[in-house]
Amino acid sequence: MMKNGKYKIWLNGALLNADTPIVCATDRGFTLGDGLFETIKISKGAPCYLLDHFNRLRASAKVLSLSLPYGDEALRGALLHLARINNVTEGAARLTLSRGEGKRGLALPETTIPLCVLTLTTGLPHVGTPHTLGLSRIRRNSTSITSCHKTLAYIDNIAARLHQEGNSNYDDVVMLDEAGALASTTCANLFWWTGDKLYTPTLGGAVLPGTMRARVLASARMLGVLVHEGRYGAEVLLGAQGAFITNALIGVQRLSSIDFAKIGKVNFAQNAPTGPMAQLLSAPGAA
Amino acid sequence: MMKNGKYKIWLNGALLNADTPIVCATDRGFTLGDGLFETIKISKGAPCYLLDHFNRLRASAKVLSLSLPYGDEALRGALLHLARINNVTEGAARLTLSRGEGKRGLALPETTIPLCVLTLTTGLPHVGTPHTLGLSRIRRNSTSITSCHKTLAYIDNIAARLHQEGNSNYDDVVMLDEAGALASTTCANLFWWTGDKLYTPTLGGAVLPGTMRARVLASARMLGVLVHEGRYGAEVLLGAQGAFITNALIGVQRLSSIDFAKIGKVNFAQNAPTGPMAQLLSAPGAA
Repeated sequence: MMKNGKYKIWLNGALLNADTPIVCATDRGFTLGDGLFETIKISKGAPCYLLDHFNRLRASAKVLSLSLPYGDEALRGALLHLARINNVTEGAARLTLSRGEGKRGLALPETTIPLCVLTLTTGLPHVGTPHTLGLSRIRRNSTSITSCHKTLAYIDNIAARLHQEGNSNYDDVVMLDEAGALASTTCANLFWWTGDKLYTPTLGGAVLPGTMRARVLASARMLGVLVHEGRYGAEVLLGAQGAFITNALIGVQRLSSIDFAKIGKVNFAQNAPTGPMAQLLSAPGAA
Repeated sequence: MMKNGKYKIWLNGALLNADTPIVCATDRGFTLGDGLFETIKISKGAPCYLLDHFNRLRASAKVLSLSLPYGDEALRGALLHLARINNVTEGAARLTLSRGEGKRGLALPETTIPLCVLTLTTGLPHVGTPHTLGLSRIRRNSTSITSCHKTLAYIDNIAARLHQEGNSNYDDVVMLDEAGALASTTCANLFWWTGDKLYTPTLGGAVLPGTMRARVLASARMLGVLVHEGRYGAEVLLGAQGAFITNALIGVQRLSSIDFAKIGKVNFAQNAPTGPMAQLLSAPGAA
């Protein structure tokens, strides 16, 4: 990647240097977290599963009365162009949509010019090394807009990692919902299996509808894996044969161990999947 | 107030025109809601109760490992100067602190230059007209960093107003915590009284430690009002003799009525406070 000053970003149709300030002090994305984002994998210089991302973004924008004044093809073209001029072959794109400038207070502005920003980074999170999860003290809130929509308000996910029990250095932490049911990690959906049964927390409450979550479930059903979406307590995960997490950048990341402190610990390293579960996990890129 | 282009803001020690973009695309305040803010009343051209605001801000910054590289006197001087050059006599100041630019992902950057932004608006919310509260479907989360710290992640407060039951046009909505206890409105602390007893939701969970909340409680105790801080269900508020909300800009705003739909309704218009409660509510500015 080029140096930051030469690296280009896209703002409402214009290409700018990445170090150009683009957001005003009264932009509601900046002042109130009033916006949405998507993180999109770039592979071989092209954005992956774009329609999944656009569909989720547009559905959430509708719920929040946010306007996205660019069509799918315009955004796809901008991402391809950005990847080319920034020389990003394998990496991540971020689409950030802010409501735009507003007056003081929470009431929605009558008219506003939304900011749609595309930025790229080169390289992807490393997958395949041992991955251990702890348990977050911060719960996810099934009534919150931030649980099922990918809003700019990500501070709880930051704080969940920052305030790990005992300051342990886990790779990520599991977040429960307000009733103690498993929800997700701070940045990924959660799956576990026993035999040919695959389990994941159900949508509709505190769980973000991950794009890779949906693809893994579809692949699992195609392969004949028995899929269970439901509400499960933390102890269920500790009793599983194996577990993995998913998001758009990592695809599928196997978990080596889980440490829920007083609730219990488990080491998955010895547990190899068999049958259709092995097929599902052998092709994470295809999942 | 001057036109936006001439109106000045303060950014890390520099005065800039308000319409100057100041935030980069990778600023974590913008991308993740990773920052804090304070809303400060300006009266007679001077910021009010600044120490209360600074103390809260610095306490929250410590919890979030955020750095605020300006002392109280520098910030006070900047606010006074901004109020003078923008000709704001009665209005509101906002201090926004963002962690600054970061790489992709949630992990805290090793080094970062925080953004500290001061903006002013002229005029204050109108107090004294009838004020009715509805009930939010979005609950506050007592484990969330956003409940007890004034973070940039305000989208739930926006959505709580946007998604009012039956699209009623209440002035604000009451938010309960995950267990159904009264917490606050989207932007103010909640109080109610019966006789000489004053009630408010207790801190430590889903309630923001409001600067005006603390001042009202101190005044109440000085006046001999019996103060009860605790956890109360929505029905307790409906059975009260009267109620009010507080924040730094409105001071004390009496409520005329509450409409909690199926849970019940109450009209406070006829209920005048007596004794020390009357004294407390007769001097909202002094509260």
